[in-house]
Amino acid sequence: MYTYEYLFNFTTEVFIKMGCSMADAEKTAKVFMAAELRGLASHGMIRIKDYYQLWEAKRININPNIRIVHETPSTAVVDGDGAIGMIAATRSMEIAIEKAEKCGTGWVSTCGSNHFGIAGYYAMMALERDMIGITMTNANPLVAPTFSISPLLGTNPIAVAIPAGKYPPFVADFATTPIARGKLAVAEKKGEKTLLGFVQDKDGNATDDPTVLKRGGSMLTLGGDYEHGSHKGFCLSSIVDIFSAVFSGANFGPFVPPSVAYLPVLDKKVGQGTGHFFGAMRIDSFQPSSVFKAKMDEWIETFKSAKPAPGRKQVIIPGEPEREKEIKIRKEGIQIIPAIANDLKEIADKLELNFDVK
Amino acid sequence: MYTYEYLFNFTTEVFIKMGCSMADAEKTAKVFMAAELRGLASHGMIRIKDYYQLWEAKRININPNIRIVHETPSTAVVDGDGAIGMIAATRSMEIAIEKAEKCGTGWVSTCGSNHFGIAGYYAMMALERDMIGITMTNANPLVAPTFSISPLLGTNPIAVAIPAGKYPPFVADFATTPIARGKLAVAEKKGEKTLLGFVQDKDGNATDDPTVLKRGGSMLTLGGDYEHGSHKGFCLSSIVDIFSAVFSGANFGPFVPPSVAYLPVLDKKVGQGTGHFFGAMRIDSFQPSSVFKAKMDEWIETFKSAKPAPGRKQVIIPGEPEREKEIKIRKEGIQIIPAIANDLKEIADKLELNFDVK
Repeated sequence: MYTYEYLFNFTTEVFIKMGCSMADAEKTAKVFMAAELRGLASHGMIRIKDYYQLWEAKRININPNIRIVHETPSTAVVDGDGAIGMIAATRSMEIAIEKAEKCGTGWVSTCGSNHFGIAGYYAMMALERDMIGITMTNANPLVAPTFSISPLLGTNPIAVAIPAGKYPPFVADFATTPIARGKLAVAEKKGEKTLLGFVQDKDGNATDDPTVLKRGGSMLTLGGDYEHGSHKGFCLSSIVDIFSAVFSGANFGPFVPPSVAYLPVLDKKVGQGTGHFFGAMRIDSFQPSSVFKAKMDEWIETFKSAKPAPGRKQVIIPGEPEREKEIKIRKEGIQIIPAIANDLKEIADKLELNFDVK
Repeated sequence: MYTYEYLFNFTTEVFIKMGCSMADAEKTAKVFMAAELRGLASHGMIRIKDYYQLWEAKRININPNIRIVHETPSTAVVDGDGAIGMIAATRSMEIAIEKAEKCGTGWVSTCGSNHFGIAGYYAMMALERDMIGITMTNANPLVAPTFSISPLLGTNPIAVAIPAGKYPPFVADFATTPIARGKLAVAEKKGEKTLLGFVQDKDGNATDDPTVLKRGGSMLTLGGDYEHGSHKGFCLSSIVDIFSAVFSGANFGPFVPPSVAYLPVLDKKVGQGTGHFFGAMRIDSFQPSSVFKAKMDEWIETFKSAKPAPGRKQVIIPGEPEREKEIKIRKEGIQIIPAIANDLKEIADKLELNFDVK
């Protein structure tokens, strides 16, 4: 087990060694740590190696000139200049919040970025300012549109954070696929089959074999098959892609750059880097803050009081499981599996840092 | 077969007879006709009877004072004052568009409204102004959250319309359930079973019986079951409900008023009427119009060129099937099944209008 502080400090030092300013390194470390705390280890310390290798391959810009390239009172297009995703995304969400302060809502589409960790982190930045936060990002292609066998879309997540009063905020953060890529990887490592409805083989046949992605298979959109509404998942994933990349001038669909260095840079570019989309809405743009929060509490209570299905406890309000994990993990510490701890030790050695493998 | 003009004029006259101004009657008729043209007959002429009966029961306000009750440069809360949904919604989307003209984007949450027909109609209003349009609405409860057997949510649709250049616009318009309520009704009328994953019985058991809604059953959210991501559909449906009703002060969740007069007015109210949410974003808030449209064309071409699954033609761009139906229906006329034509004749007789049953 590691403490939050230990891993936060280590991660900050890694990015300082790569050349980041202290401020940028801390911003980046915060997002990695938020993933660990929220129980989303697939977006936590395991990814440090990917970022390190992208840096080694000179595929991320450590000292970017992140700037607004176009704006209106309520919108901006931000060019991330090849930055670490966390740095471009944090700045973009700050701009969305600044715009919302002035005219009620702020909307930012960002190009020239990279993988940015968990989408929910940026949506939640709005909460402290009494705002609703929205985040979307496109991602490297793994997912086939309905009726197709070409993996053209990423798992393209959507996050929405909404403040409440006496209850914790509503925080939805979900990939527009039935399950996350990481869960397929886990099933594969364990040698297990999955359920049907998650992936198809290279010919478009339904399969429960999580390894088909390596042999031309693809993930399916939320809904699974057409009969169960996969075209709705395709709509959602497309909206994320268009808002993130067509709005900003980033690469869309199959042209989104890989977030790992072991995959080659793509030959064709249709824009700059990876794209994100951010929104911030002041709650008092709609209702006085106290009225809004009391109403959200009433909404949450209504759903918590729903009659549970047999064998279930109660309806889970989006964000609750992650919050419970955070409380537990803050108390008990963060578990890093040996393979990842060894990777981190290796990076530490290369960068002349210390890392204890526990 | 009926011509567009015949049904448009009839519908307009019906609403004038109910007391609407010519302008309001035409606004309402346009939305009914848009549903018929787009092949969504479940939201077309079949619903006139419901509206007529709600009017008879004095449950809709024919001469509403629709007004902005709160605003910022980019947002407004609109009180529909019990209006026909089409009238409150058209005005609300106009306000979103006016706001977007001035500060890049406009966002309107509307309370005190009623059933408003197809969500896509309002999103598409933005297209003629070179804007992206977004519409959401809550609806009377039929859908159970994941892990629950209480129908607390409506089919809560989301519509997003995005202009393109040489291609027709991207128009997504989908309920946040695997299938629409109307398709269950069709299966029920035909005495057919459905697939699993659409509904559950009163005890939360999976079933393929579309009639269970009448015996305490409920529809499921997009994803179907938890393992296939129904909690993501629950997140989406919740977001629609909160944006439509908590933002505006409308009734949320189980308190949304019925859209038919044969269901009683609910005892408990937590706000005013049904709620909607509208967004308009000028495309030149992000990119010059020509650049944006060329990029959307490239996006559409990329997805149209995806390799089809065996037995499939090509990827369907959202909005294509409805557009094809519109072309066909405009040419061939609108089919109204005898039972509905008879209902319309009956309403015509009561209002001293003519309606030919063909």
